[in-house]
Amino acid sequence: MRTQAAVALEAGKPLEIMEVELDGPKEGEVLVEIMATGICHTDEFTLSGADPEGLFPAILGHEGAGIVRDVGPGVTSVKPCDHVIPLYTPECRECEYCLNPKTNLCQAIRSTQGQGVMPDGTSRFRMTDGTPILHYMGCSTFSNFTVLPEIALAKVRQDAPFDKICYIGCGVTTGIGAVINTAKVEIGSTAIVFGLGGIGLNVIQGLRLAGADRIVGVDINPDKVPMAQRFGMTDFVNPKEVDGPLAPYLVDLTGGGDYTFDATGNVEVMRIALEAAHKGWGESIIIGVAPAGAEIATRPFQLVTGRVWRGTAFGGARGRTEVPQIVDWYMDGKIEIDPMITHTMPLKDINKGFDLMHEGKSIRSVVVY
Amino acid sequence: MRTQAAVALEAGKPLEIMEVELDGPKEGEVLVEIMATGICHTDEFTLSGADPEGLFPAILGHEGAGIVRDVGPGVTSVKPCDHVIPLYTPECRECEYCLNPKTNLCQAIRSTQGQGVMPDGTSRFRMTDGTPILHYMGCSTFSNFTVLPEIALAKVRQDAPFDKICYIGCGVTTGIGAVINTAKVEIGSTAIVFGLGGIGLNVIQGLRLAGADRIVGVDINPDKVPMAQRFGMTDFVNPKEVDGPLAPYLVDLTGGGDYTFDATGNVEVMRIALEAAHKGWGESIIIGVAPAGAEIATRPFQLVTGRVWRGTAFGGARGRTEVPQIVDWYMDGKIEIDPMITHTMPLKDINKGFDLMHEGKSIRSVVVY
Repeated sequence: MRTQAAVALEAGKPLEIMEVELDGPKEGEVLVEIMATGICHTDEFTLSGADPEGLFPAILGHEGAGIVRDVGPGVTSVKPCDHVIPLYTPECRECEYCLNPKTNLCQAIRSTQGQGVMPDGTSRFRMTDGTPILHYMGCSTFSNFTVLPEIALAKVRQDAPFDKICYIGCGVTTGIGAVINTAKVEIGSTAIVFGLGGIGLNVIQGLRLAGADRIVGVDINPDKVPMAQRFGMTDFVNPKEVDGPLAPYLVDLTGGGDYTFDATGNVEVMRIALEAAHKGWGESIIIGVAPAGAEIATRPFQLVTGRVWRGTAFGGARGRTEVPQIVDWYMDGKIEIDPMITHTMPLKDINKGFDLMHEGKSIRSVVVY
Repeated sequence: MRTQAAVALEAGKPLEIMEVELDGPKEGEVLVEIMATGICHTDEFTLSGADPEGLFPAILGHEGAGIVRDVGPGVTSVKPCDHVIPLYTPECRECEYCLNPKTNLCQAIRSTQGQGVMPDGTSRFRMTDGTPILHYMGCSTFSNFTVLPEIALAKVRQDAPFDKICYIGCGVTTGIGAVINTAKVEIGSTAIVFGLGGIGLNVIQGLRLAGADRIVGVDINPDKVPMAQRFGMTDFVNPKEVDGPLAPYLVDLTGGGDYTFDATGNVEVMRIALEAAHKGWGESIIIGVAPAGAEIATRPFQLVTGRVWRGTAFGGARGRTEVPQIVDWYMDGKIEIDPMITHTMPLKDINKGFDLMHEGKSIRSVVVY
């Protein structure tokens, strides 16, 4: 079949909207009509060329929601007309990782996913002239139709709006999951969140959901305060207004965070986040993706005196199990998504979504097909 | 009263054996006759001048065992003739830290302990000419008699030999506690231990106690293999015999450590220990004390893909509660100490104990008064 897609032909160039050829689903695969997709910093990271593992040409996008239109042989967990959210972290429920309750990093299709192909080693996408196009993060939601392995689809309720729940495919789950799965924040905790962008706001609402008493937001842009307060921030710190080192300032202010979260991707901020964690028991969670080759550092004394350094990917969530639950939380009003979707646009304007991100004008732009 | 002590007059010089004046215990304090004391690398670290917080003149030593000889007003938990192990990490059972089950870092007397004085701000030691001498780590076990706060004494059974259980005052508890309190190693785990000295051997016997299946020891000195095997090591890796980077080699060998332990104090080894931990869930525990100013570093990707970086102090143990239990384990034969006490000597020969440590000839030297 043919489908409309935004293709990343090479690093550093805008996406090109074009018709592409899409093969139908093979064994264990599913054809999904993407109804909406968010534009995430990770797409931008790859498109910019900064991602050392980025491959081109490819169809980016990994934060979508859609409808199953066809299934390949052997598919049993979804059927046509089911509503689904694609999962860049799949959940096979059979590999060593899925069977270990300590991790969500299913390895069933990791190597082929990293190579931009389906588990059989081939791509379903090609240009109309036959040039192959690669998949991206196993999702490629910047195409109106896409093919995914069955284990990379969370089946969700049918009354949830695609243009909102697509955000659960990455940002919402990453932020909330970092709080409830990775940090396992307890009621009454004090937390510090570095970076009040799309991920940081979801960390904040995750903290509110978990019953944190004090939720300190840190950002160099004070324009982000009203939105962060809406999601549950109780204190704001602008590092530009702090004299001297930031970590001791935050420790003085809070006593030290029981939990701190880096949602900036800046390795210097990651260090401050660790050092602002409470002596004896504070845990610091790295969520942000750092530039290639960048390293975190600290004195080991910070760990010997009880701080713990962790990271999280997709919020530690097992997607097929937990994403439907987060959709329920949204529909039940336990979490908010709507105010974070600041812009929507048709696929032809997708590059405008990247521009808004660069300009810092959007929290999340969503493409609605 | 007067007592025999080995005094550190200044950094980098041998200890001097001399008679010193000791004041009796004040409120909440206890006079202890030290019967035996181990010589630990931390004493050496301070004596060498490498410890930026080292103060002189002082009476070092923090790994002792002895008998209560007198108690100050208000002391209720120990009485004369009780056998005790001094605790450089006290347990007041009242401070914010003692009341938080996540940490053992009692802060009740931290600031005065760091200044080398008792909680009232003064030292009980002075030279016969009146020159004040400081306490060290709140213990000063290199003096035949010493004074400690009541909260820094673990009361232990009377049938346990002082010249063995003194080692529980630091090395044994640090190594075993890192496994059972900090890492909370589960039965069947795979673990990698870097450094097969006194701490590493105790990590290994802690792992055996915890039921680890595979216990990989890493050391550049193959002479340490027989002793490590005796304590439970199942595999040995000599980094000098490994071509290429060590962390990937260890991951190939083991699949990645469910738990890895640094018992070297070398920040490069700490990085390798983290990176040799299992993707998804491996935890790496820093036990060793690094040189002043040294920093650990890694790519944040190591944490984002599920590794956890922790540290431990005194094995995460609450001394008054757990040290008596570890003494029981020794007396019951659940753990071994005797083979690790490679040398004993009278106080007058204490500098020989430091020499043996420098020459790598001892696991533990113990001074018997």
